[in-house]
Amino acid sequence: MYQKINSNTIIMVKVSSRGNSMPLSPIRKLVPYAEGAKRKGRKVYHLNIGQPDIATPEVAINALKDISFNVIEYSHSAGFEGYRKKLVNYYKTIGIDLDINSIIITAGASEAISMAFMSVMDAGDEVIIPEPFYANYNGFATASGIKIVPVTSKIDDGFALPPIEEFEKLITPRTKGILICNPNNPTGYLYSEEELMKLKEIVLKHDLYLFADEVYYEFCYDGLEHLSVMRIDGLENHVILFDSVSKRYSECGVRIGAMISRNKDVMSIAMRFAQARLSPPSLGQVVGEASLDTPKEYFKEVYDEYIDRRNFLVEELNKIEGVVCPKPKGAFYCMVKLPVDDTDKFAQWLLEDFEYNNQTIMMAPASGFYATPGLGKDEVRIAYVLKKEDLASAVECLKHALEVYPGRK
Amino acid sequence: MYQKINSNTIIMVKVSSRGNSMPLSPIRKLVPYAEGAKRKGRKVYHLNIGQPDIATPEVAINALKDISFNVIEYSHSAGFEGYRKKLVNYYKTIGIDLDINSIIITAGASEAISMAFMSVMDAGDEVIIPEPFYANYNGFATASGIKIVPVTSKIDDGFALPPIEEFEKLITPRTKGILICNPNNPTGYLYSEEELMKLKEIVLKHDLYLFADEVYYEFCYDGLEHLSVMRIDGLENHVILFDSVSKRYSECGVRIGAMISRNKDVMSIAMRFAQARLSPPSLGQVVGEASLDTPKEYFKEVYDEYIDRRNFLVEELNKIEGVVCPKPKGAFYCMVKLPVDDTDKFAQWLLEDFEYNNQTIMMAPASGFYATPGLGKDEVRIAYVLKKEDLASAVECLKHALEVYPGRK
Repeated sequence: MYQKINSNTIIMVKVSSRGNSMPLSPIRKLVPYAEGAKRKGRKVYHLNIGQPDIATPEVAINALKDISFNVIEYSHSAGFEGYRKKLVNYYKTIGIDLDINSIIITAGASEAISMAFMSVMDAGDEVIIPEPFYANYNGFATASGIKIVPVTSKIDDGFALPPIEEFEKLITPRTKGILICNPNNPTGYLYSEEELMKLKEIVLKHDLYLFADEVYYEFCYDGLEHLSVMRIDGLENHVILFDSVSKRYSECGVRIGAMISRNKDVMSIAMRFAQARLSPPSLGQVVGEASLDTPKEYFKEVYDEYIDRRNFLVEELNKIEGVVCPKPKGAFYCMVKLPVDDTDKFAQWLLEDFEYNNQTIMMAPASGFYATPGLGKDEVRIAYVLKKEDLASAVECLKHALEVYPGRK
Repeated sequence: MYQKINSNTIIMVKVSSRGNSMPLSPIRKLVPYAEGAKRKGRKVYHLNIGQPDIATPEVAINALKDISFNVIEYSHSAGFEGYRKKLVNYYKTIGIDLDINSIIITAGASEAISMAFMSVMDAGDEVIIPEPFYANYNGFATASGIKIVPVTSKIDDGFALPPIEEFEKLITPRTKGILICNPNNPTGYLYSEEELMKLKEIVLKHDLYLFADEVYYEFCYDGLEHLSVMRIDGLENHVILFDSVSKRYSECGVRIGAMISRNKDVMSIAMRFAQARLSPPSLGQVVGEASLDTPKEYFKEVYDEYIDRRNFLVEELNKIEGVVCPKPKGAFYCMVKLPVDDTDKFAQWLLEDFEYNNQTIMMAPASGFYATPGLGKDEVRIAYVLKKEDLASAVECLKHALEVYPGRK
């Protein structure tokens, strides 16, 4: 990448190989086409994003309006002690016993994941992740020089946990952990107790970390209960949990998450990374702390809204010929199989060449959620973060688009 | 670090080598001793921190109270476009021409530095930094696997830029850049135009990046003007600037900084890292944007306050026998040479074994600011972020402490 010069000739300094390897967001590539469609006056339904349209709890917004300090100071590098104490009580209500030293407040779950990867893995180490998975895990892995080893979950199984033997085959001396997202983004799958017990066994057998991204855990449907890996006995030193207020209280912009572990060595190392960046966002912590007093009715309303959207969306999608959509049991995403040649092309075509009543849709092509090349070519991820009327119009668009798309299979 | 097992014996998973190499904060080690002193009922003057006691501008606090949105959403990964547009205007007023694509809003200057290091350097690459330097550069370097090569600036020269030949000697095929902090934390030194021109020459000759941390640039004293490296012709593609609102508006807790460069390749790669973490803090951006309307009188008052503190502190320190404190020309730190055996021991002793009228002081031992082992043993950094009365009491403490400290030289 770099050439030495001895003359005064100016050659240009270059970027890093790691920077060049950083994956582009699978959605980002489509943004110019979405902007183009909007310039043509078309309405674009954004099914591609995880930004909920639900209002942030009033109690959280009011906390900002009521601030009484006159200097916006750094917090403790692990977050305000008062906030962490309240979080300890909060986690207790969902069956998780912690103390304040097992929680480091981070700039979103994003920073928690980066911090955990850096704390327990060196460049070249490996983490096994069921694919399809949240695309930004790729970015955090590339930044920290670690390798994601995918184990494929299948749409025909509803994206259940792959057989544990498939994990076992992938374990090498460099394997340091397994990462699950539960409920899952992008699949909406909710792991069962039985599946989690299989993970427990393999984690203990090979002495691995179990990283768990549980940021969607309130969003579990059909009477199913979420089992946090933090509640599984015997994994105290193995589990590293990632949490976030972003989706729970619809406050993605505050950038408040947490890295949580009962493993004291891990937390002590993670604190060094936390101290280097001084402090997580103070104002976000004010909002996050106030959000802990959100009334129960808020969650009930949000839950009812998502259930309603999901039921409607999944039913309507499955009515379209050639479309398959397993019913998600959690989060607010579903993976959808479409009768097309290539969803990357299809998603672009929808924005560039298609309109129905001057409307079109933007979806996330699934290829970006798979690490195995070639997988996900006939799948997309749809986020049901829009109102039911809008979802209805979006499904109508999709139906018409599939009738005229030249790459239909 | 890792042992494979084939039996069901549970051995404990380990932390990473990189985590183990993460430096402990030079101040953090002293915290338990400061807590101990406070438990004994002693007043501790904190001369160790960079958290100013100055009030955040009212216009910034009011912006929070006036928010009208009901969902706290993600911003663009580079920051709200509106904020970046206003920043372009702001930088124009200080002679820096930019466009919005040359600015990525980050979670403090901390994230900007990490992002820049990752974007242009791979593991094993080197950056030359004049020492003593801001200790957290070590953390960002360790996290990204790069090596800091120190070039020593000396208290006897007032911490001027070391001779450019000293830099030249250190350049290897792995050298990718030079980093300066201007005005300097911890030394308070302000680089002259002549010094910056020498840096320009070497940067162009060896095709290096010039990283510049200019977060203290308003804080320049004695009629001296700050010359931003962004204003130097011919370095357009070489300069990467780190900025922050933390000290400028006394709002450290909002965690808003910026990575700024006119090099399009660099910014395009940095955007990938920005996209992986989705968004910088939205609320901090609201505050940062409002802060751009801070009335001029605010800065005048802050400036007068710091000048007053600095003049008092430096004069009083230099009156103490054996103490040397070069007059800082910028920022709000000074490096002080003390007649003691080891400032790490002295700083601990002050907290553990000393009191004067039931008061003591906490200072940052300078060893943490030097990368060369053994340097800085007789120096401390003092931040003049306390009121003059408190600085007076603190100096009084120091004077008495030096009279009775057993390790006096």
